[in-house]
Amino acid sequence: SILEIKTTVICPATQKHVKKYLSQEMLLVEETGEDYLSTTLPYIESQSFSVQWVYNILEKKAEADRIVFEDPDPDTGFVLLPDFKWDQKQLYDLYLIAIVHRRNIKSLRDLTSDHLPLLRNISKKGKESIQKQYGMSACKLRVYLHYQPSYYHLHVHFTSLNYDAPGCGVERAHLLTDVIMNLEADPQYYQNRTITYTLRADDNLLLRFREAGRC
Amino acid sequence: SILEIKTTVICPATQKHVKKYLSQEMLLVEETGEDYLSTTLPYIESQSFSVQWVYNILEKKAEADRIVFEDPDPDTGFVLLPDFKWDQKQLYDLYLIAIVHRRNIKSLRDLTSDHLPLLRNISKKGKESIQKQYGMSACKLRVYLHYQPSYYHLHVHFTSLNYDAPGCGVERAHLLTDVIMNLEADPQYYQNRTITYTLRADDNLLLRFREAGRC
Repeated sequence: SILEIKTTVICPATQKHVKKYLSQEMLLVEETGEDYLSTTLPYIESQSFSVQWVYNILEKKAEADRIVFEDPDPDTGFVLLPDFKWDQKQLYDLYLIAIVHRRNIKSLRDLTSDHLPLLRNISKKGKESIQKQYGMSACKLRVYLHYQPSYYHLHVHFTSLNYDAPGCGVERAHLLTDVIMNLEADPQYYQNRTITYTLRADDNLLLRFREAGRC
Repeated sequence: SILEIKTTVICPATQKHVKKYLSQEMLLVEETGEDYLSTTLPYIESQSFSVQWVYNILEKKAEADRIVFEDPDPDTGFVLLPDFKWDQKQLYDLYLIAIVHRRNIKSLRDLTSDHLPLLRNISKKGKESIQKQYGMSACKLRVYLHYQPSYYHLHVHFTSLNYDAPGCGVERAHLLTDVIMNLEADPQYYQNRTITYTLRADDNLLLRFREAGRC
């Protein structure tokens, strides 16, 4: 029913959780390739965000029973599993994540034409697996990357087109088919292109951009 | 308050209204430049969608009192006015539309580098007008075009970043800054590029794609 209301209960909630769900002013950043090198990359490195939990999944130390599909190839392989936002009880809000085996691809910004075989493999086998496992065809899927991502290890989102998934807005999502076409046209596209995205007013990266006089 | 619920009452409602608000399966189309010429353009022309209501606005025969800003230049000019979805009572869901004076630009697909002065003018003066009229700075605005648009006369959407506006998803919205960069890099970008978008399962254009064996 369209009158159904879905809720998420977080208990106990930390200050970080409260902050995440509080309405927050968003601001636009137009990040040039130069901005990435001078501002964003040093910020990411200074935070030393841990992706150990991702490595635990890739090494089957965690969530091994949740894996829907795996291509073990170290260069072009990935693991596909349901996102935690999806309870898997119905298909309208289908949401899976493909996490690549290759390490040290932090985000869209690191992609070059060298990664085309990886990206095409994720597109093809991700869609095939979802068709096989859930009976949902590729023409009902939105397949995209986030920039900025919420963690700096390359992953691809697969969501149902009928689901208005959080983070599928034009200011954060990049369709995998567009990413592939951009890299086919220009191997250094994501090193040079100005990418527009939004940050919360209290995001530390936004403060860095402000300090750099870039917004 | 975040507990506030906003409703829209449509009375009397036609079958078309009911259809619009019914939950409908969406399907993905990957439209090549060739598909546009062989399938989409003939469809648009066969429908002879009327944009007389747009011409009435441009000619001040309708809604003249709602115009926030106008640049009357026949080549690079436009009219800026609030979208009907915005009641103008608060800024969080700010929504304005810039409608170009030039006719015969149906959509993104018709844009070439010849239109860069028009697009840059809309970007610059649209943002300046919204700053002046509503005190909202450019870094809080999402500025984009739809493809497919809901009517085939070029127009640009200006919405508040804090507002999750309908149609601002990656599968329909194209940021104006990206459109400008794409045309700077390739004058024929929008004639040649494959553009991904979604259509409702009962959309007549989707039926045309099906007949052409393209989905």
